[in-house]
Amino acid sequence: MSTNEQLSVFALGGLNEIGKNMYAIQYGEEIVVIDCGNKFPDESLLGIDLIIPDVSYLVENKEKVRALIVTHGHEDHIGGIPFFLKKLNVPVYATQFTLGLIELKLKEHKILRESELIAIDSNSSLTFNNLRVNFFRVNHSIPDCLGTVFYTPEGAVVHTGDFKFDLTPVNKQYADIHKMAKIGEGGVLLLISESTNAERPGLTPSEKQVGEHVYEAFQKAKRKVIISTFASNINRVQQVVEASRLTNRKLVLLGRSMVNVVQVAMNRGYLDVPEGMIIESDQIEQFPPEQIAILCTGSQGEPNAALSRLSSGNFRGVEILPEDTVILAAGPIPGNERNVTRIVDNLYSIGANVIYGSGSTTGMHVSGHGSQEDLKLMLTLMKPKYFIPVHGEYRMLHHHQMLAESVGVEPGNTFIMNNGDVVDIQNGIARQTRSIPAGNTYVDGIGVGDVGDIVLRDRKQLSEDGLLIIILTMGKRDGSLLSPPDTITRGFVYAKDNEELLKEVNQLVTKTVNEQREGNRNDWGRIKRQVKKSVGQYLFAQTKRKPMILPIIIEF
Amino acid sequence: MSTNEQLSVFALGGLNEIGKNMYAIQYGEEIVVIDCGNKFPDESLLGIDLIIPDVSYLVENKEKVRALIVTHGHEDHIGGIPFFLKKLNVPVYATQFTLGLIELKLKEHKILRESELIAIDSNSSLTFNNLRVNFFRVNHSIPDCLGTVFYTPEGAVVHTGDFKFDLTPVNKQYADIHKMAKIGEGGVLLLISESTNAERPGLTPSEKQVGEHVYEAFQKAKRKVIISTFASNINRVQQVVEASRLTNRKLVLLGRSMVNVVQVAMNRGYLDVPEGMIIESDQIEQFPPEQIAILCTGSQGEPNAALSRLSSGNFRGVEILPEDTVILAAGPIPGNERNVTRIVDNLYSIGANVIYGSGSTTGMHVSGHGSQEDLKLMLTLMKPKYFIPVHGEYRMLHHHQMLAESVGVEPGNTFIMNNGDVVDIQNGIARQTRSIPAGNTYVDGIGVGDVGDIVLRDRKQLSEDGLLIIILTMGKRDGSLLSPPDTITRGFVYAKDNEELLKEVNQLVTKTVNEQREGNRNDWGRIKRQVKKSVGQYLFAQTKRKPMILPIIIEF
Repeated sequence: MSTNEQLSVFALGGLNEIGKNMYAIQYGEEIVVIDCGNKFPDESLLGIDLIIPDVSYLVENKEKVRALIVTHGHEDHIGGIPFFLKKLNVPVYATQFTLGLIELKLKEHKILRESELIAIDSNSSLTFNNLRVNFFRVNHSIPDCLGTVFYTPEGAVVHTGDFKFDLTPVNKQYADIHKMAKIGEGGVLLLISESTNAERPGLTPSEKQVGEHVYEAFQKAKRKVIISTFASNINRVQQVVEASRLTNRKLVLLGRSMVNVVQVAMNRGYLDVPEGMIIESDQIEQFPPEQIAILCTGSQGEPNAALSRLSSGNFRGVEILPEDTVILAAGPIPGNERNVTRIVDNLYSIGANVIYGSGSTTGMHVSGHGSQEDLKLMLTLMKPKYFIPVHGEYRMLHHHQMLAESVGVEPGNTFIMNNGDVVDIQNGIARQTRSIPAGNTYVDGIGVGDVGDIVLRDRKQLSEDGLLIIILTMGKRDGSLLSPPDTITRGFVYAKDNEELLKEVNQLVTKTVNEQREGNRNDWGRIKRQVKKSVGQYLFAQTKRKPMILPIIIEF
Repeated sequence: MSTNEQLSVFALGGLNEIGKNMYAIQYGEEIVVIDCGNKFPDESLLGIDLIIPDVSYLVENKEKVRALIVTHGHEDHIGGIPFFLKKLNVPVYATQFTLGLIELKLKEHKILRESELIAIDSNSSLTFNNLRVNFFRVNHSIPDCLGTVFYTPEGAVVHTGDFKFDLTPVNKQYADIHKMAKIGEGGVLLLISESTNAERPGLTPSEKQVGEHVYEAFQKAKRKVIISTFASNINRVQQVVEASRLTNRKLVLLGRSMVNVVQVAMNRGYLDVPEGMIIESDQIEQFPPEQIAILCTGSQGEPNAALSRLSSGNFRGVEILPEDTVILAAGPIPGNERNVTRIVDNLYSIGANVIYGSGSTTGMHVSGHGSQEDLKLMLTLMKPKYFIPVHGEYRMLHHHQMLAESVGVEPGNTFIMNNGDVVDIQNGIARQTRSIPAGNTYVDGIGVGDVGDIVLRDRKQLSEDGLLIIILTMGKRDGSLLSPPDTITRGFVYAKDNEELLKEVNQLVTKTVNEQREGNRNDWGRIKRQVKKSVGQYLFAQTKRKPMILPIIIEF
C-alpha cells in the first residue's frame, strides 16, 4: 500500500436533498459508484422534466471508475443510469429485480445491448484491486434491496442503501440481521446511512399491517375495488393479489408501469399470482362487480396516470361507478398532496367510497424508510467510528447526527456534507477538507444539460408577467423610425381590452427612440436598452407588472 | 308575507374550495351577505396575486343588498372586502377586532373614509324588513368571532362562521354554548356550518396546549427565542407574551403585519402586554440573549416575510445565532410545506435549535377549526332540519354530510352545493333547483379582472417551453421574402449553443413561406399559420419541446 493512498468518500447527489442519489467510494486509483438516481423538479424549474447528477468528475477520471453498484430499483437510485452509461459505460451490478427495472429503462434509451449488467445477491462478493465488496439484505418498499460493505486497507465502509427493519416481511424476505451484526462486530470504520425519516420517532410499521387493512377493505367492498399504489412496491402488490384471492376477485392491471413492473416481478419470481387471476380491462363486464379488483398507477395524483384519468372519467373502457371502493395505498410524497386531494374530491363526487391516508387504524400505507428507532438499531449493529448521514434534506441529516451521537458515535465523528464534499481517511483518521465538482444536470424533452440558468430565468419572467414585443422599423441611412412602432403582447394583458395603455406605450416608444437618435445615430443596442427601460418603468407604474420587453429593430 | 316570497341561500365563494368565502341569505327583496374573502392562487395561476369572488350577481341586484356581516378577521373572510365595497358600498357589521383588521385593509385601498363600519358584539341584534339577525360567540384561531342566526318568516337559519369548541380558551373568551343550545331548542330550519377539518376524527385540542409547550420551550432556551406565528392569532400571541413574562424576556416584534395587528389588538383591549416588555430591534444588544424573545411573521415560509429573511441572514440588524431557539408555532397550510422545510433546513445549518410540527407532545400548533366531534356537537346543539356544509373542498363537504346524518339529520336534507347554486325554502320545504352566476375574479398587480383565461394560457406555455419569434420581411407588391428570416428565442434554448438547430429552422421557414406564396399571395394569416405548424412539428420532433411560436410579418 502506497503511503499516498487514502480512502475517499463523496456524494454527487443525495445530500441536502431527497433524490438523484449517487455515492462513491474511492481507494487510490479505484472508484466504485453506488446508485445513480434522478430527481423530479419542483414548480420553480419551469418546463424541466428531470434532474440528474452532474457526473463531470467521474468522466474526467473515467479510467478509475470500476463499477456501478445499484442498491435497489427506485427512480431516485436508478433514474440517472441511462444518462450515466452513455457517458461512461461501466459494468452495473444489481439484484435480479433491480436489474429488471434497469433493463426497462435502458431499452427505452436504446442502450440495452451495449450495457454490461451483472446479477448479484446478498451472497455475492466483488473484488477489485484494493476493494472487496460484500452485501447484506435490507427491507424497503421494493423487493431485493441490498446494503453494501466495502473492505478497504483503511477499514470497512458500510453503505445501508434505503432501509427499514420489517420483522414480518411479505414473502419471507427477511433482512440479514445476523450478517449485519457480524459486520459490526468485525469493526466498521465508516457508516453511510439513509436519513429520510430521521425526524420521525418510533419504529416504522411493517408492510403486513397494510395487507391486513387492504384485506378488510376488500371484504367490505360491495362492488368493485380500485386500488392504486407504486408499481415497484411488489410486496404491497402481493398483498393486493392475496386480498383478491381471498375475496374471489379477478385482477386488472391499469397503467403502463404497473403492467411492466408486475411482468418483471412475475418473470423473476418476486410476485406470485394465481393462474387465471389477471384479466384484461375489456373482460371486466364478464364478471359481477364484487368479483373485480383493479390495480392501477397514479397514487401520487399524477394527471396522466390511470387513477387521475379514471377519476375524471377519461379512461377508455373502464369506469368508476357509485359504490365502488377506491383505495389510495400510498402516502403522498411531499409536494403531491394537492394532486391527491383533487382526485379524492373527484372520486367522492362520482359517489365512490374512498379510503386514503395513513392513520394507523385504517392506514393503507406505511413508509419504506426507517424511523428513529430503526436508524438507531442500524447504528447500534454497525457501531461505526465515523458516520455520514445521507439521503435527506439538511434537517433530516441533522436529526440523524443527533441519533448517532445518542447511541455512542463520538461528537465530531459525524460529517454532514454537501454533494461534492470529500471525506478522506488516512491512517484511520477522517477529515473533510476538499470538494470536487458536483451539481445538477437538467433533462428537458430530449435535451440534456442545455437548459441553463438564463433560459430558466426567462421562463420565470414570461410565466409571471408575460411578454411585450415592440417592433421598430428603422432607416439604415439616417436611423429614423420609418413607421409607428408595432406592439404584440402575450400573457401580459388582453390587447383588445387595453388599447389606451398600448397606445400610450407606442407614443412613449416613439419619443424615446427620437430622443436617443439625437445623440447616437444607428446605435441600435442603446436604443433598445432605453426603450426597455422607459417602457418598463411606465408599465410598472400603470399596472404593477413587469412583462419581458423585447424591442426588435428591423433596419431598411 | 307575499305568497311569492321565499328564503334563498347561496354562496359566491367557499364551496368546493378553501378560501374566498362569501355567503348570502335572501328573503324576498332583501339580501344580507356574510363575509367576503380572498384566496391565494396555486402555481398554475401564473403571476396572479389574489382571487376574489365574482360579485356580478350582487351588483346587478344592488338595491336588495342590505348589509355585509363579517364573522371574523381572517383573509379568507375579509380579503375581498375592499374590492367589493368599491363596487357596492354597503354597511359592514363586525366585532371590534375584526373591524380593526378591516380598517387596515380599507386604508391600504384608500377607501376608509367612504366606508360605513358598524361595531357589533354577541349581544347585538340587527333588524331588516323580514330578517332579524342575532349573534353568538364561537372559538377560533383569532379573537372575537361570531356565529349568526337569521330569523326569517320561514324559520331560523344559523351560520356558524369558522369555529371549534375550546373549553379552556385563552383570556376567558368562552363560546356561547348556552345561547347555541337555546337557539337550537327554538328550532333551526337550516344550519350552515364550516367543514375544514371534517376528515379529522376526534376533538381539536385547546389553544392552552400550545401555550404550555411554548412556555416549556422558553424555559429550556439558553439563548434568545425566535417564535413565528400568524399575527392574527392573538390568543397565541398572548401566550407568547405570557411565556416571555414568566422567563423574564423582552419582546421584539418583526414583520409589518405582526406590528400592525398587535397594535390593533392592544388598542382595542384584545391583547394584554406588560408595560415596557416590547422593545425595538435595535435595542436587542442591550440585553443578554436569554432575556430576548422575538415574535415574527413568516410561519408559512413566505420568502419575503421576517422568518425567511432571518433564516438566510437577510434581516437588517437582527441575526439568528447558533444555540438560539426557533419555534414555528403554526401548522403549514397545505401547499406551503416545502417553503417551511426550506427554512427549517436553513435554521439547522445556522446551528439553531428548531422546534416545528404539531405532534401532541411538543406541538406548537393546534388548528382553529373543529374536528369531527366538534362538528357533531354543533349539529347536535342546533338540531337543524336542513344542512348546508360550507368552507371546504368536496371531500370535506362530503364527510360533513356523513357526520350530519350520523347525528340525526334526515338523508336527503343535506345540500352539497357549488358556488352559485341556490337553495330555496318555501313553506318549510327546501329545494336546490337553480343557480346564479358565480366565479373567480383575478387580481394581478393593480389590475382587477383583466387577466383572463387567454392570458393565463399564454403564460403557461411561455413558462414551460419558452418562445421563438420568427421575423419575416415581405414585399407588399409581390409577397416575396425580402431577406432571410430572423429568429429570436427566449426561454427555449440558449441560442449560442444551438446554432445548427436555428439554422435549420430558418431554412424550413423560407421553404414554407415560398410554398405558401404559390397559392396565396399576400395571405399573411395563412403564411403565419403554416410557419407555426411546420416549425412547431419540426421543433417537437427534434427537441420534444413546444415553445410558443410567434411569426411576425413586416411588409414593405
